[in-house]
Amino acid sequence: MLNPYRKDFPLLDQKDRVKPLIYLDNAATTQKPEAVLKAMEDYYREYNANPYRGLYDISEKATERYEEARKVTAEFIHAEDSSEIVFTRNTTESLNLIAYSYGRSFLEEGDEILIPISEHHSNLLPWQQLAKEKKAELRYLYLDEKGHLKEEELKAKITSKTRIVALACVSNVLGTIFPVKKIIEKAHSVGAVTVLDCAQSIPHYPLDVTALDTDFAVFSGHKMLGPMGIGVLYGKKALLEKMPPFLTGGEMIDFVSEQEATFAPLPQKFEAGTPNVGGAIGLMEAISYIKNAGYEKIRAIEEELTAYALDRLRELPYVTIYGEKYPSENRSGVISFNVENVHPHDVSSLLDADGVCIRAGHHCAQPLMRYMEVAATCRVSFYLYNTKEDVDAFIESLKKVRRWLGLGD
Amino acid sequence: MLNPYRKDFPLLDQKDRVKPLIYLDNAATTQKPEAVLKAMEDYYREYNANPYRGLYDISEKATERYEEARKVTAEFIHAEDSSEIVFTRNTTESLNLIAYSYGRSFLEEGDEILIPISEHHSNLLPWQQLAKEKKAELRYLYLDEKGHLKEEELKAKITSKTRIVALACVSNVLGTIFPVKKIIEKAHSVGAVTVLDCAQSIPHYPLDVTALDTDFAVFSGHKMLGPMGIGVLYGKKALLEKMPPFLTGGEMIDFVSEQEATFAPLPQKFEAGTPNVGGAIGLMEAISYIKNAGYEKIRAIEEELTAYALDRLRELPYVTIYGEKYPSENRSGVISFNVENVHPHDVSSLLDADGVCIRAGHHCAQPLMRYMEVAATCRVSFYLYNTKEDVDAFIESLKKVRRWLGLGD
Repeated sequence: MLNPYRKDFPLLDQKDRVKPLIYLDNAATTQKPEAVLKAMEDYYREYNANPYRGLYDISEKATERYEEARKVTAEFIHAEDSSEIVFTRNTTESLNLIAYSYGRSFLEEGDEILIPISEHHSNLLPWQQLAKEKKAELRYLYLDEKGHLKEEELKAKITSKTRIVALACVSNVLGTIFPVKKIIEKAHSVGAVTVLDCAQSIPHYPLDVTALDTDFAVFSGHKMLGPMGIGVLYGKKALLEKMPPFLTGGEMIDFVSEQEATFAPLPQKFEAGTPNVGGAIGLMEAISYIKNAGYEKIRAIEEELTAYALDRLRELPYVTIYGEKYPSENRSGVISFNVENVHPHDVSSLLDADGVCIRAGHHCAQPLMRYMEVAATCRVSFYLYNTKEDVDAFIESLKKVRRWLGLGD
Repeated sequence: MLNPYRKDFPLLDQKDRVKPLIYLDNAATTQKPEAVLKAMEDYYREYNANPYRGLYDISEKATERYEEARKVTAEFIHAEDSSEIVFTRNTTESLNLIAYSYGRSFLEEGDEILIPISEHHSNLLPWQQLAKEKKAELRYLYLDEKGHLKEEELKAKITSKTRIVALACVSNVLGTIFPVKKIIEKAHSVGAVTVLDCAQSIPHYPLDVTALDTDFAVFSGHKMLGPMGIGVLYGKKALLEKMPPFLTGGEMIDFVSEQEATFAPLPQKFEAGTPNVGGAIGLMEAISYIKNAGYEKIRAIEEELTAYALDRLRELPYVTIYGEKYPSENRSGVISFNVENVHPHDVSSLLDADGVCIRAGHHCAQPLMRYMEVAATCRVSFYLYNTKEDVDAFIESLKKVRRWLGLGD
């Protein structure tokens, strides 16, 4: 299968490696195209400066490009206004910002926060901590055997006490695509605010915060072809405006006296200290790469690879696959599985000997693991630069695992 | 003056600029040497991966290098244990982490926090917010006319009520070097903890947290030849261990159930979510560059430039210089000044026409500006790649400012 994107990714094309890299851990982090690396390198080599307060040309250019990155991000997710985009370090910080700033200001004792049992720790622990502090209750939506939310639970658990409904658009373990539009409507019908963790969805599916009408949405640059150290918080302007600052310091103030301070307008109110300009520029270029490729094309590649991988995994009688299997357009390109009598860590380590990179563990979702009654799983996850040859290499290596361990085929 | 470092900095050596860049805003951010850029590029081109949980070779290499960066940072500042180094986004986040985690757990009503009036907003607002929340009192140490702390104030204001003494080692406005060792001793004598903001000092002066016996120290990568988006929090192990987590999410946990969680040991407890591996690797390389150059050499260059710039500025009767002037080894290479009857913003903009980059404004230190009874100042700040020719270009451009505005020489 000829893949038109692979050549753009220097890491996947290293000539001096003994074995080529079969990179199938895209749900953890993606590789970066040349254009993203070049944009960051140009920044540091040509116009690196502290933005906003410098009245000289490289600082003005740094400011312009940083704000351009904000505008591009806003347009990409259909935010009404670029001031609704706050740059953070990563998804985790974005979620903590909401829990600290919105949560600690507006939640009260007895209020309820609702999340699926499948959430990543980053969209679970901030709510758990908040609930403890506020004497609120953290409630869970459980999944059916295919990894989907249950209709009757949604009805029963979104109540007049529910103040926050937070969920991932796509499960990082099962690849389940959750019906977020419907959940947002239901949450709004009881006056709750919604928080969408788009870290696992935005690399693969378009996000339209206006059409979804979500109150908050968050994601990370490094999972969508961008660099590490840059993340995004989208929030509706009216909400962000009534929230207190989270981190305080330089750039986020208007007036500071010894005992009082007033704060800058959005989005600076939430961006204390020197921002990661190079990171934002890298993210902007990553968005441009995704737009040029197009989500339809990205999904077509991933669906084909996912269907093919599921087919090939099903040929192996000792492999258990978790969650929904078919049709592959109803799930993302994340497949969790286990090999009978082999610990996932051993599977992953043995595959590494063939240059095949997959993840093994609890995937930062211990409550889900416990709910599924497994200690850990193996996980492969695809992105636009992967090929059928990658899947073949993965399967061929996987077939050797039990043989290596003397467990037979 | 032949400068052996300048050639290592691509931004300062751009052939296609109409006018060469005279970069004198190093207190805001420094330029990056080729070695730092190359280290980050190599990371993204050869072994970019999510660290810790990947059991394949590029993830293991990413983990190793990230932890090597921590070890190098610990050794650089003479921390006893590398687990005392927490990677953050920047100085601002490090200070907020202390204020949120330590401050909110251990401060009580009536307790006092003490800081100099000259602190950057990043080392002022987190304490102001904390004081409000805890009904504690934020008190200030004022400065004499040369920008130094007053002995009698230190005696009077560090009392049995003082719980936190936070200060910059070097003022980002006046270049004052504060007697931190003495202040730490005095703070400890009343049982207060000390927080050193080393953002302005560590690029220029060695930091020995063990010799100083400080409880916390913080700084940013981007002000010391490293990239944006990476910062450091040093904390004594015993303190960090008794502090609750700040941001919660992936990687910082041990065990997570629906309603409870236990946290990872140091330093992971304070590093939620995917870390900025590329940023940490860039910082490690920056430290290596500074070590190779040597602080003595760095300071010798800066002292010579500072003395020369002060001499040349004194030739201009319409220039007022703030803070201590001589000897230049008793102050850092930061000079704040004003030009009679010209707003600092106009000075900076006019100098930009000659390619001279200086800063103008309140330098994130509004309380100091008000205390000094100025609205704003101009600021030049040197680093190891600057030359006498840079100072000459700056002075020649500055001499034109009043002429341009029709104010005479």
